[in-house]
Amino acid sequence: MKIMDGKLVSQAVKDDLRKKVQELEASGMKKPHLAAILVGNNGASETYVASKVKSCGEVGFTSTLIRMDAAVSQQDLLKEITTLNDNDDVDGILVQLPLPKHISEQVVIDTISADKDVDGFHPESVGRMVQGLPAFYPATPYGILLMIEHYGIETKGKHAVVIGRSNIVGRPISILLNRNDYPGNCTVTVCHSHTHNLKDICLQADIIVAALGRPEFLKADMVKEGAVVIDVGITRVEDPSKKSGFAIKGDVDFASVAEKCSYITPVPGGVGPMTIAALLMNTYKACLLRNKK
Amino acid sequence: MKIMDGKLVSQAVKDDLRKKVQELEASGMKKPHLAAILVGNNGASETYVASKVKSCGEVGFTSTLIRMDAAVSQQDLLKEITTLNDNDDVDGILVQLPLPKHISEQVVIDTISADKDVDGFHPESVGRMVQGLPAFYPATPYGILLMIEHYGIETKGKHAVVIGRSNIVGRPISILLNRNDYPGNCTVTVCHSHTHNLKDICLQADIIVAALGRPEFLKADMVKEGAVVIDVGITRVEDPSKKSGFAIKGDVDFASVAEKCSYITPVPGGVGPMTIAALLMNTYKACLLRNKK
Repeated sequence: MKIMDGKLVSQAVKDDLRKKVQELEASGMKKPHLAAILVGNNGASETYVASKVKSCGEVGFTSTLIRMDAAVSQQDLLKEITTLNDNDDVDGILVQLPLPKHISEQVVIDTISADKDVDGFHPESVGRMVQGLPAFYPATPYGILLMIEHYGIETKGKHAVVIGRSNIVGRPISILLNRNDYPGNCTVTVCHSHTHNLKDICLQADIIVAALGRPEFLKADMVKEGAVVIDVGITRVEDPSKKSGFAIKGDVDFASVAEKCSYITPVPGGVGPMTIAALLMNTYKACLLRNKK
Repeated sequence: MKIMDGKLVSQAVKDDLRKKVQELEASGMKKPHLAAILVGNNGASETYVASKVKSCGEVGFTSTLIRMDAAVSQQDLLKEITTLNDNDDVDGILVQLPLPKHISEQVVIDTISADKDVDGFHPESVGRMVQGLPAFYPATPYGILLMIEHYGIETKGKHAVVIGRSNIVGRPISILLNRNDYPGNCTVTVCHSHTHNLKDICLQADIIVAALGRPEFLKADMVKEGAVVIDVGITRVEDPSKKSGFAIKGDVDFASVAEKCSYITPVPGGVGPMTIAALLMNTYKACLLRNKK
């Protein structure tokens, strides 16, 4: 059994990107520039955005952080996005979610120019991904692909079972693992809350992506010997033995499942750290696209 | 075993639409208007477009057919599309495919305004469908949904196996059958040319959508007793016993499979006639959207 180490792979992606940015600069091209908008001061959002900005620095990207008050009007937020859309130096735009309730996330996402949509949430990005066109993939599924690629895991003809059909994880990873490319070419089954005989289906899987958000849901008796198990879950559960009073649990009962796997991602330290690497990759690609124009 | 009769269901959808158009008119609103562009004079395309225009007439839609020479430049075609995009009376635009080789179908599709994209091929339409937003669905998968709905076939929790992952059939129907709505909420497995043990997978299916384009591929020994079988294939095979010299075959070995099914679509007369009904439904929805604005 091998651990798929998200910190290690994420660092490898970053190291590679730093070299690519140096090459861009050496050839007189502009560096990738990510603009992030943070509305209000939700603690988790602050942490995520700070981490994204820091990562940009590490790989040599330019970054701009725009802070807006929690009471900002939707109109003013959209105006800021439009300004960034029109700013030729900005390659990628992300608006940290969630947003205050008086603002429509859908309208905000739709307003980001599709060619700067490095979060991959715009319908046009999703459609281009589905159609197999060059596209920005959402961070978590893209991070999973990067991991599979890093470990050279064979996917062609494998049966992948995805548990969960969310717009940000289950649905897109099911589409990407099914595409005619590497990683991909899996037979893919998408399961969800209405699925009967989930255990039987999981037992057929060569690759399982658990993305349902129920801590330690996937047990050893649901996993075939030698399977690859990718755990997207990240739930806080009470744990009095910890200083913080809680522990972070994935959707996989790691202790029992790990023994049966060929590869498995831990939580934390698996898929999580890959999401920023995926965002940086998208921003780099957005910059290449703009340099080409 | 019941035959799912595409001609009958298509007619029912049309009858319903005709009434809805009369209601629109009675309330002083404009009638739906479909504009079709036909480039060159490919025989099959002529037939399809003529049939679409005729169907518009039957349900009381306005239609405009724009013919362009096979030698038309891409620029002139795009200009025509832009004119239709800007024409407030036009609700839906379709450009009949295939196009001559000197024209990029992708650029043409991308140029059609997403809110008039009644063929559902624009990346934004596909993305909105994937994200569960109101969207234009591509004609064949939408036609399949309309059929399932007409016959009141239960889909929640059923295992649907889709054979084929094309952008126009396999991929979208797999997404639609998996969505959280009716018809939908299936556990969905997508199979393709790299799938191992296809027979074992098909034998688990409550619903099979065969969309791989290989005549009579699906045999009785691949189908569970009581399954619903939807045949999207339509291939000409030589048949000296026919006047025309050929017969139209689906992807399903109808004679043997039908006995085991609860429902099955014939070829011809199954999914085929539903595609125009789906196009008309999309055009009606596009009109409602524009009336609302």
